[in-house]
Amino acid sequence: MTDTAAETAVTQAAAGSAPGSTGSAADEIVSPQGPHGYSHDKESHLKRLRRIEGQIRGLQRMVEQDVYCIDILTQVSASTKGLQSFALQLLEEHLRHCVAAAAVGGGPEIDEKVAEATAAIARLLRT
Amino acid sequence: MTDTAAETAVTQAAAGSAPGSTGSAADEIVSPQGPHGYSHDKESHLKRLRRIEGQIRGLQRMVEQDVYCIDILTQVSASTKGLQSFALQLLEEHLRHCVAAAAVGGGPEIDEKVAEATAAIARLLRT
Amino acid sequence: MTDTAAETAVTQAAAGSAPGSTGSAADEIVSPQGPHGYSHDKESHLKRLRRIEGQIRGLQRMVEQDVYCIDILTQVSASTKGLQSFALQLLEEHLRHCVAAAAVGGGPEIDEKVAEATAAIARLLRT
Amino acid sequence: MTDTAAETAVTQAAAGSAPGSTGSAADEIVSPQGPHGYSHDKESHLKRLRRIEGQIRGLQRMVEQDVYCIDILTQVSASTKGLQSFALQLLEEHLRHCVAAAAVGGGPEIDEKVAEATAAIARLLRT
Repeated sequence: MTDTAAETAVTQAAAGSAPGSTGSAADEIVSPQGPHGYSHDKESHLKRLRRIEGQIRGLQRMVEQDVYCIDILTQVSASTKGLQSFALQLLEEHLRHCVAAAAVGGGPEIDEKVAEATAAIARLLRT
Repeated sequence: MTDTAAETAVTQAAAGSAPGSTGSAADEIVSPQGPHGYSHDKESHLKRLRRIEGQIRGLQRMVEQDVYCIDILTQVSASTKGLQSFALQLLEEHLRHCVAAAAVGGGPEIDEKVAEATAAIARLLRT
Repeated sequence: MTDTAAETAVTQAAAGSAPGSTGSAADEIVSPQGPHGYSHDKESHLKRLRRIEGQIRGLQRMVEQDVYCIDILTQVSASTKGLQSFALQLLEEHLRHCVAAAAVGGGPEIDEKVAEATAAIARLLRT
Repeated sequence: MTDTAAETAVTQAAAGSAPGSTGSAADEIVSPQGPHGYSHDKESHLKRLRRIEGQIRGLQRMVEQDVYCIDILTQVSASTKGLQSFALQLLEEHLRHCVAAAAVGGGPEIDEKVAEATAAIARLLRT
């Protein structure tokens, strides 16, 4: 019950159905870099992340209920896969928008952008 | 604000400070296999999972606030790393308790247990 | 001894110190897409790959000599790391040259190139 | 041509068809820990590793011939997958034999063996 209430609350916050609070949060936060490549897919990203959040809460329930370790590990693999799919989608949009824009813009910025993206991919590979 | 309320609710549920609802959930679910190797470390596992849950919620806020893609990817790597550390700890306890017990017990069960553990490791590697 | 002879032969072939055979191979093969982003770093890539090849041969010797399993697994991790570093360097050059060129060129090619690069990253992540 | 000669030499060395040299190598090396769990599957392991070695040599040829980067990355993924399958098989045999034996033997050795195996799995995960 409490858990469900929490999930509902999170869903409301993310879906913007509690405009007062979400709105004020938006007022307070100054986004450091404005809209990015992934911005137009925001709702699909949030949906995906909320599903992963639900899986992590599911893992907590499994531990609380002494579920068999191997079944917990299977759920961990599913959550990790979900996170990596999210990362890949974000990365694709980043390459398509930010990196491509740097290339079109010319100058040395493309080298920085590519080095930065490669470092992010290396971090994903090494986790 | 709503988000904070949600976090509090989840924390309460997980910490058992809302005994009514958590308790009834425990009544309804019949744990399929009783306490396992990881059971004595339950609180440390739950703490770890709640930290990961917080990171996933952090990712949602980052998406909502149009944070730079590369910074989001860095946070994804941290969450994935957290999940893998959790999996490794669970696996270690599983090997020490369940697999070792099957070996001591003798008979063909050890082969099943080892094949099952290896399949779980393969799933972790391939995500 | 045979092994050392083999290593020498491979090194000669790769280093081009047997110009007759290497030269004729180059004549016979029609590169499907000409020089790519990574071409100017060819020698460093080949050096890296020859080191990995040496590690794989080292693994064979370890198996032949009944070396302790855990030590073999450590060597497997080192070889996998070597392969991933190679992949990351190749990917960086690909993004900097091929993907950037597609962006500058305009048109729909950038979408294809980005999708293709993302799919390659996904394959690296899922191995 | 030189490359083919090298491949033949390696195959001979591995298959033991050059008994003089391979034999003397076996004489010189004192295996630190005798036969292990994986020993009875030696020939299948060596076959697998020779195939991976062939893939790494294939990667060198691809680089020499300016093959398209994405195709090289696909081959890297295949080689990494091959290495991980080899590692998983080795690990399974290690758990079934060495770890199980430590459990049956009793005493603190099982803790060491499990910690050691978990550390090896962590290294595989983090590459």
